[in-house]
Amino acid sequence: MSVDKELKIVLVGAGNLATQLASAMGDSGLRIAQVYSFSLSNSQLLAGKIGAEATDQLSQVCTDADLYIYAVKDAVLADVIRQIDAPQALHVHTAGSMRMDVFDGIQARYGVFYPLQTFSKERKVDFRCIPFCLEAKDSADLALLKTLASCLSDKVYEVNSEQRSKLHLAAVFTCNFVNRMYAIAHDIARDNDLPFDVLLPLIDETARKVHDLEPLAAQTGPAIRFDENVINKHISMLDDDRLKALYRLVSEDIYEAGNCN
Amino acid sequence: MSVDKELKIVLVGAGNLATQLASAMGDSGLRIAQVYSFSLSNSQLLAGKIGAEATDQLSQVCTDADLYIYAVKDAVLADVIRQIDAPQALHVHTAGSMRMDVFDGIQARYGVFYPLQTFSKERKVDFRCIPFCLEAKDSADLALLKTLASCLSDKVYEVNSEQRSKLHLAAVFTCNFVNRMYAIAHDIARDNDLPFDVLLPLIDETARKVHDLEPLAAQTGPAIRFDENVINKHISMLDDDRLKALYRLVSEDIYEAGNCN
Repeated sequence: MSVDKELKIVLVGAGNLATQLASAMGDSGLRIAQVYSFSLSNSQLLAGKIGAEATDQLSQVCTDADLYIYAVKDAVLADVIRQIDAPQALHVHTAGSMRMDVFDGIQARYGVFYPLQTFSKERKVDFRCIPFCLEAKDSADLALLKTLASCLSDKVYEVNSEQRSKLHLAAVFTCNFVNRMYAIAHDIARDNDLPFDVLLPLIDETARKVHDLEPLAAQTGPAIRFDENVINKHISMLDDDRLKALYRLVSEDIYEAGNCN
Repeated sequence: MSVDKELKIVLVGAGNLATQLASAMGDSGLRIAQVYSFSLSNSQLLAGKIGAEATDQLSQVCTDADLYIYAVKDAVLADVIRQIDAPQALHVHTAGSMRMDVFDGIQARYGVFYPLQTFSKERKVDFRCIPFCLEAKDSADLALLKTLASCLSDKVYEVNSEQRSKLHLAAVFTCNFVNRMYAIAHDIARDNDLPFDVLLPLIDETARKVHDLEPLAAQTGPAIRFDENVINKHISMLDDDRLKALYRLVSEDIYEAGNCN
């Protein structure tokens, strides 16, 4: 089943996710007709890249599109949805943590089109590996979303709102919190005239390892061995009280998980 | 400069690191004559793989080797060093967190041969990418260690005890703590009938990203945006008090780092 490439799509948002999604859709021959952002320069920047119209006025979002894809902050999503006047169209959001029923009572045809990945504006990612988590009120719209996602990715999943919120929670740990651990290590390296690069092979192998081993089996280091000498020495080496508390908490968690499960 | 392949080497230890190091040294044509472990079965298992002798008695460790490589738990290292009677030989440990001067007053020629990587017994790693952090009391021995490390890896660094202890602290964050984040996500996925595999592209991209961007610039997610709705919802979704505290602490740390640096 191939998607109708003449599907008229409006992208509501011009942030990291919207930027990368627009670029991937363009590469797949899908046509985004218009980009909205509350910032005109952002909407123009993105629209310019993909040959779309730009607007910063919700009242000027075109009303005859087939599909509206919302990639805005969670806090403003409900308000933005309410201002789009396209009652025949399919409306989907791209947020991990928002329930599908945010559309309920506002739009008639709706769903979720959630790519589980971390996006930065300037960094191109390979969409074919990105899991798309889909949900729709109606089965025909779900089928349309599946076809659309398949144009972009080889990994398409049907995931309900409850599961998606759990997946998003898991994603915060595997991405946002992991990146914070990298950042703390980066600061330690910088403060001691060590290049951060020296840690990259370790970062890569730690990520690769959980492709083959369950993370619990892959655990190494002083905490799993309950090596108190090292743990206490490390805590004393950290200047910041929050980092000391964090080191202690994660180490306790590693030790108990390794000895209870 | 090529290392003398007839260098007689004794490996003191048969754990994860010793196992992988022995295998890499074997592949490079280096000869390990004997493996010691306090567990006879472990020393026999590893010695059998590489055609070495095995012993579980420190008193039976041969006294005529050129190089003794210690890969034992930090807590027993000093005691083990004291029991090896080879005053002419070079003695090196492989620990991130132990100072070189653990050998002081016990052996005459000593140093550190620290591969910065996470090792599991059954998982082969590519040693050519592993940073070797070297230190030696004498410059001639440092040169020998550099030559030896170059047989195994393309990344050889001279790192003093102070810097190495910081590097080890940074490694705990980038590897052990990161892996714990993966494990927490694994549990969340399992408890909600979601395959852990769906998170792997995110794990990979998060690791790849910091090859090109500083971690602080790569940070995404609810904490950096201080999206309190999502943060509070996530904390309420976690059953365990330690995980709630951990979520809060890491989120605070992300937010403050993103807004202070």
